[in-house]
Amino acid sequence: MTLSITQAQNWIEEDLQNFYQSYPSTPLFEPIQYLLRIGGKRMRPALVLLSHQLFSDTPEKAREAALAIEVFHNFTLMHDDIMDKAPLRRGQITVHERYNTNTAILSGDAMMIQAYQLLMKRPCKNQHALIELFNQKALEVCIGQELDMSFESRNDVSVEEYLEMIRLKTAVLVGCALQMGAIIADASPESQRHLYACGEEMGLAFQLMDDYLDAFGNPETVGKQTGGDILADKKTYLYLQLLSRASQDEKRKLQGPFSTPEEKVGTIKEWMRYYSIDEEIKALADQYSQSAIEHLNAVDGHNEKKQPLIHVVQQLLHRQA
Amino acid sequence: MTLSITQAQNWIEEDLQNFYQSYPSTPLFEPIQYLLRIGGKRMRPALVLLSHQLFSDTPEKAREAALAIEVFHNFTLMHDDIMDKAPLRRGQITVHERYNTNTAILSGDAMMIQAYQLLMKRPCKNQHALIELFNQKALEVCIGQELDMSFESRNDVSVEEYLEMIRLKTAVLVGCALQMGAIIADASPESQRHLYACGEEMGLAFQLMDDYLDAFGNPETVGKQTGGDILADKKTYLYLQLLSRASQDEKRKLQGPFSTPEEKVGTIKEWMRYYSIDEEIKALADQYSQSAIEHLNAVDGHNEKKQPLIHVVQQLLHRQA
Repeated sequence: MTLSITQAQNWIEEDLQNFYQSYPSTPLFEPIQYLLRIGGKRMRPALVLLSHQLFSDTPEKAREAALAIEVFHNFTLMHDDIMDKAPLRRGQITVHERYNTNTAILSGDAMMIQAYQLLMKRPCKNQHALIELFNQKALEVCIGQELDMSFESRNDVSVEEYLEMIRLKTAVLVGCALQMGAIIADASPESQRHLYACGEEMGLAFQLMDDYLDAFGNPETVGKQTGGDILADKKTYLYLQLLSRASQDEKRKLQGPFSTPEEKVGTIKEWMRYYSIDEEIKALADQYSQSAIEHLNAVDGHNEKKQPLIHVVQQLLHRQA
Repeated sequence: MTLSITQAQNWIEEDLQNFYQSYPSTPLFEPIQYLLRIGGKRMRPALVLLSHQLFSDTPEKAREAALAIEVFHNFTLMHDDIMDKAPLRRGQITVHERYNTNTAILSGDAMMIQAYQLLMKRPCKNQHALIELFNQKALEVCIGQELDMSFESRNDVSVEEYLEMIRLKTAVLVGCALQMGAIIADASPESQRHLYACGEEMGLAFQLMDDYLDAFGNPETVGKQTGGDILADKKTYLYLQLLSRASQDEKRKLQGPFSTPEEKVGTIKEWMRYYSIDEEIKALADQYSQSAIEHLNAVDGHNEKKQPLIHVVQQLLHRQA
């Protein structure tokens, strides 16, 4: 039996429900249930399962670890939303807005502990390595979030620094997900290394496509109003590349004023297109995806079982419409 | 060799220094160093070491776990201070005040992960049990903090609920410290159980003495102005007992107004003394301490090596001057 992405995601939904229903609806646990129910693509936990089955015919052995990484990811969302003062998450009110900041801090803390409880739930031969990897990558996610926050008050952020930030904030956890599946299945260090690298490249490609779609996506396909990053002067890849190309005069104009938000978004997108940054970012995402596939090809494992993972990478790139 | 409390505390100070110096002074890690340098009695980590040596002649084997519990404890302080809007911690500016709330959230998150890293640092035979205990008690600490916060907006908190709150918020981590030392030394489940119970009772005694000293301690010995809890209408054991005894008329007077803060503190302390609540709380703390000693006596282990732990319990009770 080979799990498809959809089957993996269905398992996760089922396990998530059982998970949050096992806690009482107290002020500490209720917000956790709320956030987990809002949804999400469950991509990270699905990757744990899809990676694990490359080396194993018992995919259920990775279910708890898959759940752990989803709970951890949602913990980071709960705390990031406080720090970013975000009113909405996936179109729903964020936890700190719906409850309050103290609740979002404390329920987030509880979620991180729950993630470790899930990691410990099914003892495996390589548990020590599993938790050490998780610890290291979890800490790197914090370092990435710190970098992201520090960028807000800086105006000398380089494109390289931005790529390092998204690597830490987003990509390392994707790599962690793929390597965790491999660790649980007792795959070779070489395969583990390739799967981790595959995940990092996927994470980078994903984040760059996110940046691209926020500016150039079709609102109907993307599912939200585009141009948000531009209006918020967010230091994305697109913005930083534009800054690095623009003349002094253009840089001044970039700061505005603009007569309407639409004019701002339109003008800046026009400049980005003029410098071909829209094409460049897609090419870079494509390059990361290719590299992800190469790492996947280098992994020992059934080719047939690699198909769902290849499919995930392809989906990443063809989200744009 | 038997470690004394002071020797154990010295080890911890040394290990803490090495720990925080191993991280760069970035905006994420610098606040962690700041908080850990402010000090504290290092009682929890010392208890890990003192418990461990009951069953072992190699106390260094518990150093990383001791450090882990101190780092975790300080993580809870960093986040609690945000939630309580506390300006000071041990006479120094709190992290969220000195830096900002976002930093205190994120550096606190990083500390929790670091605690797990420390726990994994020296593999031991019972590591699975060690981490499961830590997870469970860490989650209980969150439940305790949630209860504590919920008490602020309630006026029907019972004495029993208060005792359950301090058990979760404070005492379980003391029990955890003692049991962790025993787990690492591979002590019997029976001894582990007694040491955990000993710690819980110690933690309860400690918190009650804290409540007592905040109202009735000698400011010079306690090292801070007394009466703070009374002025803040904090629902301590003393306050809740007073509420449960007072007549309707007295309850009304308890709400004030008072002409000066001194009058408020003086009047309420007088009522507490009138109902002998000051004596009762000391008697209750004494009872918990006795019970702690009984559990310690029931533990298999060298009597001589129990002395430092007995000394800790005695210190707890005779902090008042």
